[in-house]
Amino acid sequence: MNPKRYLPILQWLPGYSRATMGSDLLAAVIVTIMLIPQSLAYAMLAGLPPEVGLYASIAPLVVYAVFGTSRTLAVGPVAVVSLMTAAAVGQVAPQGSPEYLGAALVLALMSGLILTLMGVARLGFLANFLSHPVISGFITASGLIIAASQLKHVLGVEASGHNLLELLGSLGGSLGGVNGPTLIIGFSVLASLYSARRWLNPCLRKLGVPARPADMLTKAAPILAVAVTTLVTWRLGLDAQGVAVVGEVPAGLPPLTLPGFDSGLWSQLFVAALLISIVGFVESVSVGQTLAAKRRQRIDPDQELVGLGTSNIAASFTGGMPVTGGFARSVVNFDAGAETPAAGAFTAVGIAVAALLLTPLIAYLPIATLAATIIVAVLSLVDFGAIRRTWDYSRCDAMAMLVTIGVTLAIGIETGILAGVGLSLALHLYNTSRPHSAVVGRVPGTEHFRNVKRHAVETDPQLAILRVDESLYFANSRYLEDTVMDLALRQPGLCHVVLACQAVNVIDASALESLEVINARLRDAQVKLHLAEVKGPVMDRLRNTQFCRELTGEVFLSTFDAWRSLRGESATPGRACGAAEPMV
Amino acid sequence: MNPKRYLPILQWLPGYSRATMGSDLLAAVIVTIMLIPQSLAYAMLAGLPPEVGLYASIAPLVVYAVFGTSRTLAVGPVAVVSLMTAAAVGQVAPQGSPEYLGAALVLALMSGLILTLMGVARLGFLANFLSHPVISGFITASGLIIAASQLKHVLGVEASGHNLLELLGSLGGSLGGVNGPTLIIGFSVLASLYSARRWLNPCLRKLGVPARPADMLTKAAPILAVAVTTLVTWRLGLDAQGVAVVGEVPAGLPPLTLPGFDSGLWSQLFVAALLISIVGFVESVSVGQTLAAKRRQRIDPDQELVGLGTSNIAASFTGGMPVTGGFARSVVNFDAGAETPAAGAFTAVGIAVAALLLTPLIAYLPIATLAATIIVAVLSLVDFGAIRRTWDYSRCDAMAMLVTIGVTLAIGIETGILAGVGLSLALHLYNTSRPHSAVVGRVPGTEHFRNVKRHAVETDPQLAILRVDESLYFANSRYLEDTVMDLALRQPGLCHVVLACQAVNVIDASALESLEVINARLRDAQVKLHLAEVKGPVMDRLRNTQFCRELTGEVFLSTFDAWRSLRGESATPGRACGAAEPMV
Repeated sequence: MNPKRYLPILQWLPGYSRATMGSDLLAAVIVTIMLIPQSLAYAMLAGLPPEVGLYASIAPLVVYAVFGTSRTLAVGPVAVVSLMTAAAVGQVAPQGSPEYLGAALVLALMSGLILTLMGVARLGFLANFLSHPVISGFITASGLIIAASQLKHVLGVEASGHNLLELLGSLGGSLGGVNGPTLIIGFSVLASLYSARRWLNPCLRKLGVPARPADMLTKAAPILAVAVTTLVTWRLGLDAQGVAVVGEVPAGLPPLTLPGFDSGLWSQLFVAALLISIVGFVESVSVGQTLAAKRRQRIDPDQELVGLGTSNIAASFTGGMPVTGGFARSVVNFDAGAETPAAGAFTAVGIAVAALLLTPLIAYLPIATLAATIIVAVLSLVDFGAIRRTWDYSRCDAMAMLVTIGVTLAIGIETGILAGVGLSLALHLYNTSRPHSAVVGRVPGTEHFRNVKRHAVETDPQLAILRVDESLYFANSRYLEDTVMDLALRQPGLCHVVLACQAVNVIDASALESLEVINARLRDAQVKLHLAEVKGPVMDRLRNTQFCRELTGEVFLSTFDAWRSLRGESATPGRACGAAEPMV
Repeated sequence: MNPKRYLPILQWLPGYSRATMGSDLLAAVIVTIMLIPQSLAYAMLAGLPPEVGLYASIAPLVVYAVFGTSRTLAVGPVAVVSLMTAAAVGQVAPQGSPEYLGAALVLALMSGLILTLMGVARLGFLANFLSHPVISGFITASGLIIAASQLKHVLGVEASGHNLLELLGSLGGSLGGVNGPTLIIGFSVLASLYSARRWLNPCLRKLGVPARPADMLTKAAPILAVAVTTLVTWRLGLDAQGVAVVGEVPAGLPPLTLPGFDSGLWSQLFVAALLISIVGFVESVSVGQTLAAKRRQRIDPDQELVGLGTSNIAASFTGGMPVTGGFARSVVNFDAGAETPAAGAFTAVGIAVAALLLTPLIAYLPIATLAATIIVAVLSLVDFGAIRRTWDYSRCDAMAMLVTIGVTLAIGIETGILAGVGLSLALHLYNTSRPHSAVVGRVPGTEHFRNVKRHAVETDPQLAILRVDESLYFANSRYLEDTVMDLALRQPGLCHVVLACQAVNVIDASALESLEVINARLRDAQVKLHLAEVKGPVMDRLRNTQFCRELTGEVFLSTFDAWRSLRGESATPGRACGAAEPMV
């Protein structure tokens, strides 16, 4: 057992230099500035008090620096996971109650345990079953739901709902109570953040600012909006005019908290914790891999699970909420020059300082400002173009995506992602249950064989060569039986069927039985079955089977050998199955 | 729309001749003799009065003759489906009650509707997801449970249970009450039926009886056992000595029955009806296809669904129970010379005559005799050798089989089959999530490329050629990313990566995104990505994608072209992705 594998901090801490520390410190300052408004906003999105967001951005970052394998991933509260937290916790406790807070801690603990256990059991591959179109559709739909859920704060009205329909219906019913000052603040922030995204970067570039600083300044725009609107609200006393503000936030370091161990609550939250774990892991590992590859570094997905899992456990014991690696924040960390996870630990120090000293300053921070920063952030995740691109490329994938979006918007996020995963698996299995195969003939004058439907090739009425283009397993083995028997029925003078197996990597026990059936049925019809181009590992397993003993025909090294031998043109026949040499 | 397709009777009835009728009549007489004890026994196994088995062997056979596509399939009650019926109906009503009878009718109706709808929607492929090892394990376990459930009748004691553990425990507790005469009858029948299976056939053959008649005489042995034990019981008045007998069976044709439409009952029975449908269909279509192939005939699985579905609907309206095509019975029908489904209709007439005239004769038929015929029939289905054979061939398949057997025996038949299907799908997906691929090098002096780990081949430090041996889809696309990036990291002087795609039949949207990611990451690392041997349909879809526009390298017709061109040895370079000609 290599301790460096399970404690990745040992890979970089011993050689940590002053120069590296300078880079990491600079990145940490920039990420801290970006993370303060984000952590407040995502705590609010999860229905939790703002300080919970700060707490969730301290201990988890330190723990990730010890156990995580990405050098530049910035861990903390993120939009989609916060929405999923709100949906899950909202089902077991009313928002604002101590039970709600407690359930969020339990959710973080469960999600942390699930991730850690998955990592220890090396189950990182499970995330692969979330296909890209399902993730993309889920994130688009989540973005729309999040934006809709924040609209009420920008308008200064009451509204609630678990899906887009409920949210919009609830909003529509309360439009009469719009609060003027709130609306003005909210829309000013929306407009300025949108403009900053759109125009600030190009303008700065024109003024001669280099690309990276320009980009980082643009991404720091929310902190400016926070400062300005807080100041305005305080000076004009807008909170007395109905502008909702963050209010008193207790100053201090994160409290030690003990998540509850109520088995009823645990089983109620289990599915949500599992989905949060997997979605958070997929988001985190995607950005981690992308950034690592840019510097020819590697991340280990199974150890990443442990890193994220322990981070969430840490969050649950320090008054936090479920966390994962955030996309925008990690890119900023990378661009700002972070070289090791120490940058994350320094960020944690920055947030701890903010929690100790800055909380009195944000009492007058309007909720509308935070809501506007969320809306601008999540609408950038909404990608309708992806629907069109996916539709053009693959109808099946587009269907899975549309179902994910539709169910998420109409019913809810958990049902949406489960429907997407279920449908994409079902479509995949359906497609592989009808494997591609082609009757092939000889390209005249060569040793090559091509599909008779696409090319002008030589064929022989006594001989049918079927190229099987997929591994053979239970779901497609009966289809193979049908295909071969159809072939035998359509060609009455047939004496030989050759299965060309160059694309067959596996023949499972069901397919083996189907081959036995095919062999027996062809024998009853006085047709011999031959194999050609069987791969080494496949032939090794076939050798001692009943199928091999009963095979009426031979095993040929190449399709061309089969062609020549079965037409009586060659002195190099195939071999009996048990004696055959594998081809590849 | 071709009426002959949806009414297969039109394919054979117009040309029906006197000679064919002779063959069909002979087969019908033999099958009737075999079916009378079977139908009584399987009704009892399902917990239903014996006449229900007769009723289920009349209308369904006529209907199958109209809608079914197999020329020789013999429809009626079968062992496994009867066991599943008992398990399902036993959960909603106590055995012997009118509700139990009614629930069996509802089950037949639901199963009939499910099968018919599946046929109309052409969902016959769903049966493919029951892998052979799961079916084999399920049938072995069902055989054991059935045999155990019938032991009480042979011993003359009371016992009950839903799985093997419960059954054996219950039997063990009641062994004190064994009834002597019942035991003698039961074991005599067991011994004589077993001897008939073992020795009668060889003896008859020695005496000069031809193979087929000898085989059929052997299979008719149960009717002899029925006749002899009934006579003995009647003459010696054994029923007064505690031998349970069938008792009064109402003589007459099947009654018209109307299954209930209680939505609660329907939803309780739905899963069971679905499983009965699929298991029955798999059993039926396997034997149907095997027999059809022997005469170079075809059956249409989707129309078979309609045939079996309408048969079950007919059963539900004529006092019957769920039915399907039986294995042993169909083989006898085939061997006896049945040429068209008319043989089935004639069998129905035979059974109707029996229901009208023979029922008074079976009042003294001992239940122990029926139980013994069931035990001998189902133990022939138990195949422990299959476990060993499957284990030797494939551990994954053997695991699915063992889990199916274990869960079926320990918990119950529905849970068992669902566990088997779930596990075999999960194992399949797990296996395909790590696709086979190999780094290949050139076999010196040829145009062939082989795995560098298996063969002494030429390689180039600037060039890595990866042969991908599976279609690329969401579950394995991330694995491909890892494989390629590992390759790039391990070979520091690398300039070119070539993906050889001869075995790639599909690239789904997730895999396409992974290819984009691979291309971008390799570009960041100053490595070019190339493709080779891309199949026609795959290339057609790739052509208009972002991946194709951004591909840093080229698309080569063959791996050899890539090898020569990238080493600067050739004047025939690849083409830009948008302009590439497909290879196959």
